[in-house]
Amino acid sequence: MNYPNGIKKQIKETPNYGNRGMTLEEDINISNDYYRDNDIAIIYKKPTPITVNKVDFHSRCDATITEAHYLTPSTTDYNGVYKGFYIDFEAKETISKTSFPLANIHTHQIEHLKRITKHGGIGFIIVSFTKLNRIFILMANDLIAFITTNNRKSIPLEYFITTGKEIPISLRPRIDYLKYISFERKENGNDTKEEKRK
Amino acid sequence: MNYPNGIKKQIKETPNYGNRGMTLEEDINISNDYYRDNDIAIIYKKPTPITVNKVDFHSRCDATITEAHYLTPSTTDYNGVYKGFYIDFEAKETISKTSFPLANIHTHQIEHLKRITKHGGIGFIIVSFTKLNRIFILMANDLIAFITTNNRKSIPLEYFITTGKEIPISLRPRIDYLKYISFERKENGNDTKEEKRK
Repeated sequence: MNYPNGIKKQIKETPNYGNRGMTLEEDINISNDYYRDNDIAIIYKKPTPITVNKVDFHSRCDATITEAHYLTPSTTDYNGVYKGFYIDFEAKETISKTSFPLANIHTHQIEHLKRITKHGGIGFIIVSFTKLNRIFILMANDLIAFITTNNRKSIPLEYFITTGKEIPISLRPRIDYLKYISFERKENGNDTKEEKRK
Repeated sequence: MNYPNGIKKQIKETPNYGNRGMTLEEDINISNDYYRDNDIAIIYKKPTPITVNKVDFHSRCDATITEAHYLTPSTTDYNGVYKGFYIDFEAKETISKTSFPLANIHTHQIEHLKRITKHGGIGFIIVSFTKLNRIFILMANDLIAFITTNNRKSIPLEYFITTGKEIPISLRPRIDYLKYISFERKENGNDTKEEKRK
């Protein structure tokens, strides 16, 4: 629902990034709420996949799951639509100050981002270097380019700075990542055309 | 993964629709597997949203959920990308032979489909009249048009026949719904332009 004049949101979103103890996921969810409330994009976090083993049915409409397990996600956490484009991304935090360990992303998630891009979707990852208070976006093409041309087990911060884009923390939305996605990309992977939102 | 020459799939998908006892969801999942395996589209069913109350952590990587509840979905069950378009839909079965009860779709799911369409996504519902062995696709615009111009609590079969499209059961994929989605739609909601897949 919409908040009149975004007052509630404003209170909720007063940024104090350094020590407000919010996770990247919370920040992105708030930003997605903002995108929806302001009719900019419809993007949701997918529910965590679990496998249910036992369920107690108290009544027809009240069921309690008594045994279930978390599953390894086969896709990314977030997807949705923005100006008719399919948006698909994964968001990860790292405490490292120098690089993002690739072990944080499952191989099938990278495969998924590869497929998404191939099918004309806009795929990317958002990485928060929590100790540095810096958040970056890296388009799927650049992520894949790095993995295919490197044997390294982590992506250096430098690669995010040079090839990705840093997302500044703003008031509303907290993480305005849609402003930093690249729509068109030449084969050499250098020249990108930005989508500027009015 | 891909099945060489789709042999495994072929066996899996030999259609015997009348009494093979497969649900619409199973059929759509198999069809989505086919779309992925054959590089046609990347569409997944979202995990069922639940709220976890209690978790036992046996070890760092082995956690058992011991109490959780199902949540009312705020979005639809399926979404993904097809030729760069954002695809979003809900699939429902009804045992009625004459109409589809609107109680089967949550109001916020209809609101979601409305938003999706507004943002340039392709939203629709797939309804299976199980007793008739007939499956229809109804684009979000037509669903919303019906709801806003009718006080009826159910959509008559006739409306699916005239305004929607019937999806025949085929061999591979079982339910080739992407063949029946409308891409462009005039304001009067009658004239539709089809996307033909090669």
